[in-house]
Amino acid sequence: MNAAERLERLADLAVSVGANVQPGQLVVIGAQPEHIELVRPIARAAYRAGARYVSAIYDDLHVKRALVELGPEASLSHSNPWDLTMLDTLVSEQAAYIRVSGDPDPELMAGLDSERVGKAQYREFRARWGHIVSHREVAWTIVPLPTAGWAKQVFGKPDVEALWTAVIKALRLDRPDPAAAWHAHFDRLRTIAAAITERHFESLHYRGPGTDLTVGLLPSGQWHCADFTTNTGHNHAPNLPTEEVFTSPDRRRAEGKIRSTLPLNVPGTMVRDLQFEFRDGKIVDVSAGSGVEVIRAQLAIDENATRLGEVALVDGSSEVGKLGLTFCNTLFDENATCHIAYGSGMEFCVEDPADVAVGINHSAIHTDFMVGGPEVQVDGIDARGSRVTILKDNEFRIS
Amino acid sequence: MNAAERLERLADLAVSVGANVQPGQLVVIGAQPEHIELVRPIARAAYRAGARYVSAIYDDLHVKRALVELGPEASLSHSNPWDLTMLDTLVSEQAAYIRVSGDPDPELMAGLDSERVGKAQYREFRARWGHIVSHREVAWTIVPLPTAGWAKQVFGKPDVEALWTAVIKALRLDRPDPAAAWHAHFDRLRTIAAAITERHFESLHYRGPGTDLTVGLLPSGQWHCADFTTNTGHNHAPNLPTEEVFTSPDRRRAEGKIRSTLPLNVPGTMVRDLQFEFRDGKIVDVSAGSGVEVIRAQLAIDENATRLGEVALVDGSSEVGKLGLTFCNTLFDENATCHIAYGSGMEFCVEDPADVAVGINHSAIHTDFMVGGPEVQVDGIDARGSRVTILKDNEFRIS
Repeated sequence: MNAAERLERLADLAVSVGANVQPGQLVVIGAQPEHIELVRPIARAAYRAGARYVSAIYDDLHVKRALVELGPEASLSHSNPWDLTMLDTLVSEQAAYIRVSGDPDPELMAGLDSERVGKAQYREFRARWGHIVSHREVAWTIVPLPTAGWAKQVFGKPDVEALWTAVIKALRLDRPDPAAAWHAHFDRLRTIAAAITERHFESLHYRGPGTDLTVGLLPSGQWHCADFTTNTGHNHAPNLPTEEVFTSPDRRRAEGKIRSTLPLNVPGTMVRDLQFEFRDGKIVDVSAGSGVEVIRAQLAIDENATRLGEVALVDGSSEVGKLGLTFCNTLFDENATCHIAYGSGMEFCVEDPADVAVGINHSAIHTDFMVGGPEVQVDGIDARGSRVTILKDNEFRIS
Repeated sequence: MNAAERLERLADLAVSVGANVQPGQLVVIGAQPEHIELVRPIARAAYRAGARYVSAIYDDLHVKRALVELGPEASLSHSNPWDLTMLDTLVSEQAAYIRVSGDPDPELMAGLDSERVGKAQYREFRARWGHIVSHREVAWTIVPLPTAGWAKQVFGKPDVEALWTAVIKALRLDRPDPAAAWHAHFDRLRTIAAAITERHFESLHYRGPGTDLTVGLLPSGQWHCADFTTNTGHNHAPNLPTEEVFTSPDRRRAEGKIRSTLPLNVPGTMVRDLQFEFRDGKIVDVSAGSGVEVIRAQLAIDENATRLGEVALVDGSSEVGKLGLTFCNTLFDENATCHIAYGSGMEFCVEDPADVAVGINHSAIHTDFMVGGPEVQVDGIDARGSRVTILKDNEFRIS
């Protein structure tokens, strides 16, 4: 597969399986200016799929860096009104949104005031986007593009070709029919999600080195895989790759400690050796080997930022996990192993409106951190206190 | 001057003299993704000047190419609602707008259906922008960035360094104090503009090889140089470089033939050997050695596209003209020599509202084409029919 072919295959997958672009649809591609080599094939693939109009919106992290370094404090959380119009248009036009991930410069914010980095969150935009995701209002997907900066994080040198080899494997682009491979994969994940939902667990219990955490689940909670349908019936895959089954937990209940098992890339900052302590559903203590100030600033964004929005399980059959790499990119690392997110939850994960009202978290942020691995066991505990092993030695024990 | 220094000097000039960014102001930078090397220094310079918030908006001509090649006919003139919100915000927030020019791929649209290329005009956006310019609602500027594609058009090879040498000269970046040099230059241009305004010419007469054109002027018409003030008193220089004095003519009166003296770059298409014939103020015939279909499509955009919006005079002292190059870029070529624009005019060029109502043109387009040179003489004719030579042998004869 040469360089043009793999971009073409990836663009086709983003349009067909990812956003599942329909004839007559409006398509918006969100990317960094360094991503033009993939954005342009995606635009062409979308038009070939019958898109009515395709827009590329580039956000430049170097301009954000200038804001953090030189701009006024009050502007750090500013959102442009036109970007909010864009989100409104996505909803009103039932548009598709394709996001390209692959940070060209993961250490871009290094050396800046970490508190200011953490505050620069494009707050209103992110809150509205969180609402859109939670209410399944738009067909969206995130797809990766290997960049030199990202490759350097993974391999210690800017070996973009090695990163492409991994991405091709994880995205199943080397299969004869990648789209068919993804549909078969979703069938398996849907079966696992249904099996967990069926047990109506009252909580999850994580155990492992540095980890002993209980997270409450909601009575009408549903487990899902990343094979979504919008509230108007448009099927899409929000993440490519995806290997997880997930739900939104009860925002009121989390107790204990958890240690992250992989580094976390918050755009422009690498966070290593992250640990949290929870009490009464809230993060009450956080520590990290590096980048802790950025996490602290995120947790200070609003009053619900310290509560949980997502719990997700991934087993060792993951094509991402099998690569044995630390990608320093959430789209990959969250699909290598189990993860948890603090911040906003997803209302569609709960059936009963009463559970939504009391149990689903709302926040301007949603940050996933990785907590799984062969040494971490996850049990489900039902209302009578019975314990069932869901994941052990990186294998699902439930079906 | 090394590569970083010249970008820095250019960015500073764009912010100080160009948009004249004020403390607390919102700044929007419009560019192509290939322009990041200049956009980022401009963002930093704007924050150093006290900008409240700086946004970069990139438009990707390759995505536009995909639209022209593969998109539905009805979408060719579509404007994104969020880009209109951006224009509204520029006005309501009294923001500054800095545009980067320098086409990275001037022949990008080659081989496509020329009629479709011409129709892809981002119509509503351009019409609103035309209104903003005409009503002096925003402080704006256009500055150049040398790119390989542009250099190839100028020199026949992608000699970016040679293009930088020319741009540095034209922008006076090699002067000890470029901003002071520009303010002195504006003093001279203002004097010439005032001298022409004072004569109250009833029309201009262009004579030269292939050219014999009379263009009507309005009784309360004012000549300006590109040293502008917005309707709220914000001084700015809309073009850098700029060498012209100009006004908006009477849209009802243009008679005769005119031959363009330099090639014209409509984004993605080179138009060569352009000729127009006017009758009763309207273009009634157009021909060109190449690219005529794109001009024809522009002229068909609305009923006023065929009428004139601007007449501008440039003499041989022009720093751009002295370089003796064909830049294939309107920002430069229109400042090498006299030019005329079909499409929208500028209301601020006329004092009397009655003249505005009957005489100033409104259209979704404004395209400048070059008509000057040593062989072209421009005379002013007053209400009594007396003729005064304004420009001859590339020298102003009026003061």
